[in-house]
Amino acid sequence: MSKPYVIGIDMGGTNTVFGIVDTRGNVIASSSIKTAKHNKIEDYIDDLYNGITTLVKENDAVDKIHGIGVGAPNANFFTGMIEDGVNLPWPTPIPFARMMYDKFHIPVAITNDANAAAIGEMTYGAARGIKDFIMITLGTGVGSGIVVNGQLVYGHDGFAGELGHVIMKRNNGRLCGCGRTGCLETYCSATGVARTAREFLEISTEPSLLRDIPVEDITSKDVYDAAMAGDKIAKRIFEYTGDILGQALADFTTFSSPAAFVLFGGLAKSGELLFKPVRESMERNMLSIYKGKVSLIPSELKEADAAVLGASALGWEAKAPAE
Amino acid sequence: MSKPYVIGIDMGGTNTVFGIVDTRGNVIASSSIKTAKHNKIEDYIDDLYNGITTLVKENDAVDKIHGIGVGAPNANFFTGMIEDGVNLPWPTPIPFARMMYDKFHIPVAITNDANAAAIGEMTYGAARGIKDFIMITLGTGVGSGIVVNGQLVYGHDGFAGELGHVIMKRNNGRLCGCGRTGCLETYCSATGVARTAREFLEISTEPSLLRDIPVEDITSKDVYDAAMAGDKIAKRIFEYTGDILGQALADFTTFSSPAAFVLFGGLAKSGELLFKPVRESMERNMLSIYKGKVSLIPSELKEADAAVLGASALGWEAKAPAE
Repeated sequence: MSKPYVIGIDMGGTNTVFGIVDTRGNVIASSSIKTAKHNKIEDYIDDLYNGITTLVKENDAVDKIHGIGVGAPNANFFTGMIEDGVNLPWPTPIPFARMMYDKFHIPVAITNDANAAAIGEMTYGAARGIKDFIMITLGTGVGSGIVVNGQLVYGHDGFAGELGHVIMKRNNGRLCGCGRTGCLETYCSATGVARTAREFLEISTEPSLLRDIPVEDITSKDVYDAAMAGDKIAKRIFEYTGDILGQALADFTTFSSPAAFVLFGGLAKSGELLFKPVRESMERNMLSIYKGKVSLIPSELKEADAAVLGASALGWEAKAPAE
Repeated sequence: MSKPYVIGIDMGGTNTVFGIVDTRGNVIASSSIKTAKHNKIEDYIDDLYNGITTLVKENDAVDKIHGIGVGAPNANFFTGMIEDGVNLPWPTPIPFARMMYDKFHIPVAITNDANAAAIGEMTYGAARGIKDFIMITLGTGVGSGIVVNGQLVYGHDGFAGELGHVIMKRNNGRLCGCGRTGCLETYCSATGVARTAREFLEISTEPSLLRDIPVEDITSKDVYDAAMAGDKIAKRIFEYTGDILGQALADFTTFSSPAAFVLFGGLAKSGELLFKPVRESMERNMLSIYKGKVSLIPSELKEADAAVLGASALGWEAKAPAE
């Protein structure tokens, strides 16, 4: 009687991953399209429709989709709008839930990608059983999903949890995509790490494996590879990144006193290279009542799955818009 | 049948105010004792017992007290302990709820003073009907009580909401009572304002009404009086204080996206002298998606009442400890 599947969609600045998910949280099938190649949002939705329709047909799921859940940058759970999506190629705001419903004729719910990841982690990942935690996503930007007493924090307008835009340097901070300076994400995102690499290489003539790469092409993955090969500058880049992130986590702790921070995204795969300096800095900067009490744990979900699963969970609650 | 009153106790670093409160939130009677004059916590509790017993007898409330709710610095709702109480004269931790129960033989619940004030404001004050707000208490220190979706945020260990200890200056910050440097409360508490006054007077020879007061004796009230009399340095002190507080509130907004900040405590009575620079700084520093959406409102409760009422609300839920 009731439809047994939901669609989870993780819209990233580069790729959009989507999957068919069953009631137990199994990803039955998944696929992806490029986000950025579409000049118009309508073209993007058409492409998404074709991709999802193909996947649904291939998996015998026609007329079995209960709802669609979407994790997207700056997506508002309450209004269904994508607003000020700084890493997206289309003008904002976008009435995305409404546009998707008009195309798919299936109920659609959206939230920001980091909130979706937090829901995924709470339901299926490292945060199972943890009622107070903060998910920090270290990707192109830095996002966050905050869970207090088992509930995702949306705030009065649906926009809570933009911790990547907390100011870490009030003087001479780096310019952020948001138009302000000194935001956490300008230092601790993958692009922030690459910026640090360029800065560190510029201010010294110390030999480094990173000097073999054209400076504008250096990625956080290159820095990781160099650090693992013993490169001193690359290691210092991770220490610098971890120090700033640890300072931020110590501050965040004063807010909701979480039992854990879950680190997620490409950079979080760096293991102790990142976790050690983050942990040390967090403890060093922590108010005494919190010292030694907050865990720092890596996501236990595959990167694509976490966001798709989290988004899909929203699909179960999605409702058709009022006509 | 059921007992019609609760006791609310607001333990401050200087004074402890207590009152008898009925089911409708009327403060039937209240009184106070000095907190700091007691060298031992036992003596303090004895004095409190005598004061409350007298008040209870005078108001025909013997055997009519359902429970006792206490707002105290660093008090833990979950454990009943006062831990690391930096502004209290006794060694911590203190098993305060247990000690109070052993003395009064009435169920006791405790939380930190700012959380108690937030509960009071939500139940009886400016935050009635607001489901997402942050109470900022500007007293000897800076405290906070965070309400998300109508629920007070306690965190996994009961210690959430220490926003006075978010770091606002990472270099050359002022030494805080917590042992770290640069905390918000070293700038935006009443004592922070007095520190700013001393700094501003020292770095110039500009005339000021404040120069008539011995520099170590200047209080935030003196700065307020001077500013109201048109004193330029005093006005700049409020602008400086407001600027930093506004920066902090802009950052806090990224966390829980509150509909409002409620400012409470002595400094919050400064009116537009403080509110104007706070509001301007908050908006100037705000991430664009939050601009123009967050109210800045003064507490609507009398200072003593808010904390006593908030604490008293806890008294209704207080339970006797397991023997």
